[in-house]
Amino acid sequence: MTDVALFGAGRIGTIHAGNVARQPGVRLQYVVDVDRAAAQKLAAQYGGQAVDADRVFADPAITAVIIASSTDTHAELILRAAKAAKAIFCEKPVDLALERARVCADAVRASGVPCLIGFQRRYDPTFATIKRRIDDGEIGTPEMLIVTSRDPGAPPVDYIKRSGGIFKDMLIHDFDIFRWILGDEAATIYATGSCLTDAAIEGAGDIDATAVTIRTRRGRLAQINTIRRAAYGYDQRFEVIGAHGMLQAGNHRPTEVMLWSSGAITADKPEHFFLERYRAAYAAEMAHFFDVLAGGARPRTSIDDGVAALALAEAATTSWREKRIVEL
Amino acid sequence: MTDVALFGAGRIGTIHAGNVARQPGVRLQYVVDVDRAAAQKLAAQYGGQAVDADRVFADPAITAVIIASSTDTHAELILRAAKAAKAIFCEKPVDLALERARVCADAVRASGVPCLIGFQRRYDPTFATIKRRIDDGEIGTPEMLIVTSRDPGAPPVDYIKRSGGIFKDMLIHDFDIFRWILGDEAATIYATGSCLTDAAIEGAGDIDATAVTIRTRRGRLAQINTIRRAAYGYDQRFEVIGAHGMLQAGNHRPTEVMLWSSGAITADKPEHFFLERYRAAYAAEMAHFFDVLAGGARPRTSIDDGVAALALAEAATTSWREKRIVEL
Amino acid sequence: MTDVALFGAGRIGTIHAGNVARQPGVRLQYVVDVDRAAAQKLAAQYGGQAVDADRVFADPAITAVIIASSTDTHAELILRAAKAAKAIFCEKPVDLALERARVCADAVRASGVPCLIGFQRRYDPTFATIKRRIDDGEIGTPEMLIVTSRDPGAPPVDYIKRSGGIFKDMLIHDFDIFRWILGDEAATIYATGSCLTDAAIEGAGDIDATAVTIRTRRGRLAQINTIRRAAYGYDQRFEVIGAHGMLQAGNHRPTEVMLWSSGAITADKPEHFFLERYRAAYAAEMAHFFDVLAGGARPRTSIDDGVAALALAEAATTSWREKRIVEL
Amino acid sequence: MTDVALFGAGRIGTIHAGNVARQPGVRLQYVVDVDRAAAQKLAAQYGGQAVDADRVFADPAITAVIIASSTDTHAELILRAAKAAKAIFCEKPVDLALERARVCADAVRASGVPCLIGFQRRYDPTFATIKRRIDDGEIGTPEMLIVTSRDPGAPPVDYIKRSGGIFKDMLIHDFDIFRWILGDEAATIYATGSCLTDAAIEGAGDIDATAVTIRTRRGRLAQINTIRRAAYGYDQRFEVIGAHGMLQAGNHRPTEVMLWSSGAITADKPEHFFLERYRAAYAAEMAHFFDVLAGGARPRTSIDDGVAALALAEAATTSWREKRIVEL
Repeated sequence: MTDVALFGAGRIGTIHAGNVARQPGVRLQYVVDVDRAAAQKLAAQYGGQAVDADRVFADPAITAVIIASSTDTHAELILRAAKAAKAIFCEKPVDLALERARVCADAVRASGVPCLIGFQRRYDPTFATIKRRIDDGEIGTPEMLIVTSRDPGAPPVDYIKRSGGIFKDMLIHDFDIFRWILGDEAATIYATGSCLTDAAIEGAGDIDATAVTIRTRRGRLAQINTIRRAAYGYDQRFEVIGAHGMLQAGNHRPTEVMLWSSGAITADKPEHFFLERYRAAYAAEMAHFFDVLAGGARPRTSIDDGVAALALAEAATTSWREKRIVEL
Repeated sequence: MTDVALFGAGRIGTIHAGNVARQPGVRLQYVVDVDRAAAQKLAAQYGGQAVDADRVFADPAITAVIIASSTDTHAELILRAAKAAKAIFCEKPVDLALERARVCADAVRASGVPCLIGFQRRYDPTFATIKRRIDDGEIGTPEMLIVTSRDPGAPPVDYIKRSGGIFKDMLIHDFDIFRWILGDEAATIYATGSCLTDAAIEGAGDIDATAVTIRTRRGRLAQINTIRRAAYGYDQRFEVIGAHGMLQAGNHRPTEVMLWSSGAITADKPEHFFLERYRAAYAAEMAHFFDVLAGGARPRTSIDDGVAALALAEAATTSWREKRIVEL
Repeated sequence: MTDVALFGAGRIGTIHAGNVARQPGVRLQYVVDVDRAAAQKLAAQYGGQAVDADRVFADPAITAVIIASSTDTHAELILRAAKAAKAIFCEKPVDLALERARVCADAVRASGVPCLIGFQRRYDPTFATIKRRIDDGEIGTPEMLIVTSRDPGAPPVDYIKRSGGIFKDMLIHDFDIFRWILGDEAATIYATGSCLTDAAIEGAGDIDATAVTIRTRRGRLAQINTIRRAAYGYDQRFEVIGAHGMLQAGNHRPTEVMLWSSGAITADKPEHFFLERYRAAYAAEMAHFFDVLAGGARPRTSIDDGVAALALAEAATTSWREKRIVEL
Repeated sequence: MTDVALFGAGRIGTIHAGNVARQPGVRLQYVVDVDRAAAQKLAAQYGGQAVDADRVFADPAITAVIIASSTDTHAELILRAAKAAKAIFCEKPVDLALERARVCADAVRASGVPCLIGFQRRYDPTFATIKRRIDDGEIGTPEMLIVTSRDPGAPPVDYIKRSGGIFKDMLIHDFDIFRWILGDEAATIYATGSCLTDAAIEGAGDIDATAVTIRTRRGRLAQINTIRRAAYGYDQRFEVIGAHGMLQAGNHRPTEVMLWSSGAITADKPEHFFLERYRAAYAAEMAHFFDVLAGGARPRTSIDDGVAALALAEAATTSWREKRIVEL
């Protein structure tokens, strides 16, 4: 039996708790949250206990920790887990400060524990299939990547203020997609953006719409477009052009109903938001984490991927703020 | 220069006149219509003359006639044209009476003139491509055919009274599709139907919605569903299942615009009605007629196809009226 | 805690066991199967015991039974469960003999226990949404229904021999869809068919492709087309035309990947077969069963629905065998 | 009768000649081409004459000229036509040199003749519908534009050498789409690119894949991605996100056939190349030109649009060459 501790009993922690409960041979032993009532409720649902962090790191029976607490706690928890030789699954980003993220990566490397970062899109059935088909050579060498990544609505401005900005908070997923799909690293990055949907976001020193271009070391091109509030919903698509064809990832829809009315033919909007869109991905991601622990799988993400995506987010932020092309 | 006479200056006659005018080396010499003003207007547009039928058949320079006048005139015009050795293009149906249609077929056969029947769907880019791909063996032997054929609105009841009923007026096209696509003849036919959309149609002794099933001599199956008034528009689809796959014909849409709104994703309805949906088909059909006359093509339809579709329409009418399965 | 017994540890029983295990407050206590090893393995997976049927009916703690054993055992188990006042979930069909199914329905009625029949399609996200939108009046009165129901491959001939024939084995689901969606009962039914894909099926006295037409008491029309072996996969669609529009149910696909190659644009085939296509439906169905037991939901299907679908299957079989239209 | 002269009897000149011939009341009087045989052949087809340019400008009966000759001839022909007070339709670009294009615009303005530039995409049924629906307020203020513009294959390197480079030759259409759809002007432009498909293009000092980002004066964002050789064909899409929704322009396909095979569901590739994709657009464009001449329509494009798109192409070229963000 693998005993697990979960940090964070919020929205994403709850998802992970449910997925942990579905793994055979895995037990959710502890839940840690500053909101003790939330921790207790979630722990009770799966037969665990609400405790504090010290208790987790003092218990040698805990072999793995899942870090889904607020971003400002990630680095410390990673460092403590690495020191205690517990396997780590940590939500993105590793930290808002690149330097501190690198310290975490060093610690993980030194301890030798697996440390998977929660880039759940890599486990999405559609995205993962595209990656496999590229690796199988179906479109030849990938040459261009166009990523569409739009949210149905912006988070509260208070959240935005603490988020590290749109590039670290939202595009970090897209930067990971870029590295994963093109299999190459950025040589230059250019980012511009605007505050188009809510002036309060501008007031918080951030933007809500971006256009990013990356040119890789081998000359491949990537464009990413994002917006915090797409009036029509959550939009997660990408397309990758290769020497022999293109693979295109479409949105998932709740149903396959079409209405033919006197005005038009209408289909469902995409799944509402990330919890719905990536439901299968979150499940597959957690299953993968325990496969890795059981020795049956090579980790599909590492803390180095987390650091690399963060470095791109930081470079994009610089490009936007200083209105210049950044070389990496 | 090929000199042509057109019978009928109505909606479909106007379409044919335009397509005749686009054929190199072809001249629309005469237009005949009981509405003399309409004939004059149409003739003038293309540099021809409005005349009566006798003038057409007396003029040896006329090598081809296009019959797009009302159904009750078709048979007589075919007989006169066959006698005068003029090539014939005639709109469906040959006649409302199967026996009289057979007399026409005999006359055509005796005279040796080409006589193409206006089953324009055979020239539709989508439908014609499916036929070609079946013939190329892409799905193996065709086994089942499902035809969807729905109109956006019923014609006036006065028209319906003279139309020969829904099977001869509307499904005759679908019966031709059946024979053409499955490449087999009906062994049994069963037709049922209802008057669902307009009680006046029932008052006229007709129905406005039908469900037809045909079993062929080789045991293949076809189902046809029709309705006079599909609230959402003109719907012309079919799918043919073969031993190795299925080919499916979808509707054509005016544009490829999609709107992603807060409620749904919407696309265009199908093209409005047959004049729009089959615009390319009417053009290709007329080009084919003159290719046949020029000796460059084997006729893609014959009067025998017209008679065969009519026989199916008559059998379907009997099946519906007498509530029994009809053997052919 | 609700204690449950499961009859049948085969493919569908295994699905139900997993879904039972996911219901909070429900325990899979017993598994019964003639294959004792299979029963033991499945029971062990969820902490239950492999027992025989007598033990189930003798244990007053068992409040519900799930019948997923072979068809020939359904009726007896329903009768015993009804007598023991245990709530029933039973796979279709109730029995191959209509008379015996009616005896079961009487017993269920007398005992007052809920008895849900496994028409899982009613719980499919796409199909259930269409039903709700029809009930909400979105397309007005439903007038026509076209059902496409095709399997990717035929079962072994041995299975077919014991299956009751294609209408009771395969189309029973489609007959239920017909009643549920049109909200009307059949007045006449006509069924024809052929053996197109495997001569051994004909040798077993059955067919593998059918075309069925139903006219309802109110004059509405339904067409069903089925084939045991669609070379391209499992195809489960329907469309319902109403006075104001059409609702169309499409297939579900494993991913939303599209490949644009030099020859064509290609998308995924539909989900492989019923276990994949109806995965969400099976889960929702079992959740619904326990909602009913908990008093929170009206049963969405009853044994009367099972009997009614069976009656249509029997009438269709008669129509096909005797080559006549059957009145109901 | 409006008498017209056509310069250029190549591929696009031939298209225009056919569309001129279809306008009622318009006559193709002269065709001018350095390849005299080509001019004669095309002129003969429509009853005109092959002449030299002097003859055109000396003939006061010619009221309009269509300039479809090679780019290096455009400016001189525009200047001569403006001086001779003949209405002008000219293919893009006005000239490869921005300064010279501005001289042409001045001359046109001074003479007062209409001068439409051949941005045929504005007449495409799908694109024109999107423009109209934006103007109707369907998605609120447009905020972002993503343009996909990919060719099925690169032209010969000799052509590329004389083309002015990818931005002036290929993206000029996309720059016009940008201005037309967003209804705003560029404040900054950033362009990068690579030679990914054919080293000979690099040898010619050009690139074959680009990624362009424009930020407008009002802060709106546009991204354009292009490639000279998309292995799967000609790909012409865009999507515009507004405050209330998104409008998306898809490709047009030759047919609506779908094949469901044992491996996948496949649809047609987009129309082969621009002559097929924009067939309807070229016809509508020429009809519009003669509507303008007849006084019935305001010109949908002007030489100023041609100059503005060229200025963007020049700025993009600078951005790419000098690896910097260009302000406009």
